[in-house]
Amino acid sequence: MFQIKALDKSCDQNIQRRIDLKTKPVGALGKLESLALQLVRMLGDEPTVARPAMLVFAADHGIADAGVSIAPPEVTAQMVANFAAGGAAINVFCRELGWTLEIIDAGILTPPDPSLNVTNCRLGAGTGPIHKRAAMTLGQVEQGLEFGRARVRAHHSLGSNLIGLGEMGIGNTSSAAAIMAALLDIEAKDCVGRGTGVDAATLKRKQMLVEQALVLHMSELGDAKSVLACVGGFEIVQMTGAILGAAEIGIPVMVDGFIATAAALCAVKMYPETKEYLIFAHRSGERAHGMMLEHLGVEPLLDLGMRLGEGSGAALALPLIKAACGFYREMASFDDAGVEPVVS
Amino acid sequence: MFQIKALDKSCDQNIQRRIDLKTKPVGALGKLESLALQLVRMLGDEPTVARPAMLVFAADHGIADAGVSIAPPEVTAQMVANFAAGGAAINVFCRELGWTLEIIDAGILTPPDPSLNVTNCRLGAGTGPIHKRAAMTLGQVEQGLEFGRARVRAHHSLGSNLIGLGEMGIGNTSSAAAIMAALLDIEAKDCVGRGTGVDAATLKRKQMLVEQALVLHMSELGDAKSVLACVGGFEIVQMTGAILGAAEIGIPVMVDGFIATAAALCAVKMYPETKEYLIFAHRSGERAHGMMLEHLGVEPLLDLGMRLGEGSGAALALPLIKAACGFYREMASFDDAGVEPVVS
Repeated sequence: MFQIKALDKSCDQNIQRRIDLKTKPVGALGKLESLALQLVRMLGDEPTVARPAMLVFAADHGIADAGVSIAPPEVTAQMVANFAAGGAAINVFCRELGWTLEIIDAGILTPPDPSLNVTNCRLGAGTGPIHKRAAMTLGQVEQGLEFGRARVRAHHSLGSNLIGLGEMGIGNTSSAAAIMAALLDIEAKDCVGRGTGVDAATLKRKQMLVEQALVLHMSELGDAKSVLACVGGFEIVQMTGAILGAAEIGIPVMVDGFIATAAALCAVKMYPETKEYLIFAHRSGERAHGMMLEHLGVEPLLDLGMRLGEGSGAALALPLIKAACGFYREMASFDDAGVEPVVS
Repeated sequence: MFQIKALDKSCDQNIQRRIDLKTKPVGALGKLESLALQLVRMLGDEPTVARPAMLVFAADHGIADAGVSIAPPEVTAQMVANFAAGGAAINVFCRELGWTLEIIDAGILTPPDPSLNVTNCRLGAGTGPIHKRAAMTLGQVEQGLEFGRARVRAHHSLGSNLIGLGEMGIGNTSSAAAIMAALLDIEAKDCVGRGTGVDAATLKRKQMLVEQALVLHMSELGDAKSVLACVGGFEIVQMTGAILGAAEIGIPVMVDGFIATAAALCAVKMYPETKEYLIFAHRSGERAHGMMLEHLGVEPLLDLGMRLGEGSGAALALPLIKAACGFYREMASFDDAGVEPVVS
């Protein structure tokens, strides 16, 4: 059980007025203005980002054995080692832009070497192949939600007031597509895309396997937890828990691309108020992401044509969060600056 | 005369190969990959941004007296004072994101108080009203190009290897629209937009005045310098000089929105090779900006619905430049990291 409250909007008029009286034409900062409103609701009237924490959850997927990716399942563990060594895109982006980065083993095939700086939140050695049986038990779903919540709480206790979410897991676009299809009642073929870049034949197989998974579990896809148990992934469950945990505390969560948005769909399905805490960072190159965003009624901040995961899109949007906080906090009003109001 | 060379592309294959062998699917970093290629051509094989310098050129426009903006001409000077005091959006963004900021008086109506930290590059007390006479003389155009070049050289000598361009000038969307119409041979009404947010009647008047200016100067709009003299602005001329000056040195220039792109059009018209040095930062909310970008065949990095100027869009795109340099410099290759190549 998570305790998630709708954001207090009683001050919205005052917040909007302060935005409108800044030395700029009304609305001239575009998306940064609505972003500032959302951030101030959570972070208060002098919003500042403190110790932004990027949590990258990694896990393996039974369906990967059926060949739904350009990469073999071993690549999940290899990339986790790469994260731990600081050599992946997310490492570079976190260093450049000021994120604290934590890598979490949510359940990759073989546990990483204990010498690596990877947090153990293992739910198992990869999920079951969703086209043949359930990905996990409902008990694992509950445990995964708790793990995600616990990671967010740990960072919050160290001073973080903004969470970014990323993932790594060969096969996880298949799981995310199945979750999307189940929760939004969209045909599998429209939810499945090229992921890391599969060819036409693999795409076809991937679509068939996801369709097969949905048919297999049809009678059990009633709520988000069941959907996660049937067709989810260990990293997706933990991201869902992290989102809910952040919303519970009342801090913003930056949602990355296709997989992270599948977790967001689960979180919002369980607790609709969660949506107000989410900041969508980047429109993925994965084609079905657009449909997820449309369903949620949100427009992400960036559209750089990336399709990497790892939290890369969320990482790159942090400066926009800082800019939105900064202009709200520090920009002069017309009165302060002695500028004639250019309110149209 | 500027000495501008086409960028050396003899290493492009090697650069692209290094990008493709990073631990990520080929192409998965989207626009950051082509950006990295462009940056490495200019900044070399270990690209790093050094002392990024944002130059904001301010000037007044005779046409503003005819009422083409929601703000009176005095607002230019008031905003310059606001810049100098650190209270505007561009000040906040530069502080948050690590730009060195210089404010340049390219020719506002009344010189700013000498106590303010504003660089004097005055070409006059505002341009002539372009619908009645030339904005400036060809001598002023030459002087303005030199001023812009000199500012870039000054920053380069202090260690800057990246220039951002912004502007402030009530009435300058009218001038930029006239430049666009003249250089691209597009009808005035399609080039003129709502600027800071004018109403339908003012928009109509603005379109008529720009049309009038184009008819008046029709016989003299042969090359970019003449276009600048007839319908340009002091800040636009100096931005043009800054662009050419940076291209001459061989460093990248981040182009902001509608007005800065008008300067880019002039620079590219004079020296087509200049285009290779330009990074387009943000798609402005000003509707005709899209047509300019299409003409240049470029796609900006950001699309945040802003329409502020001041260099705000360029400022916000700096972290993407750093991320592109960073991933190229620091990301592990498949070999380095012991990851199986996921090259499709």
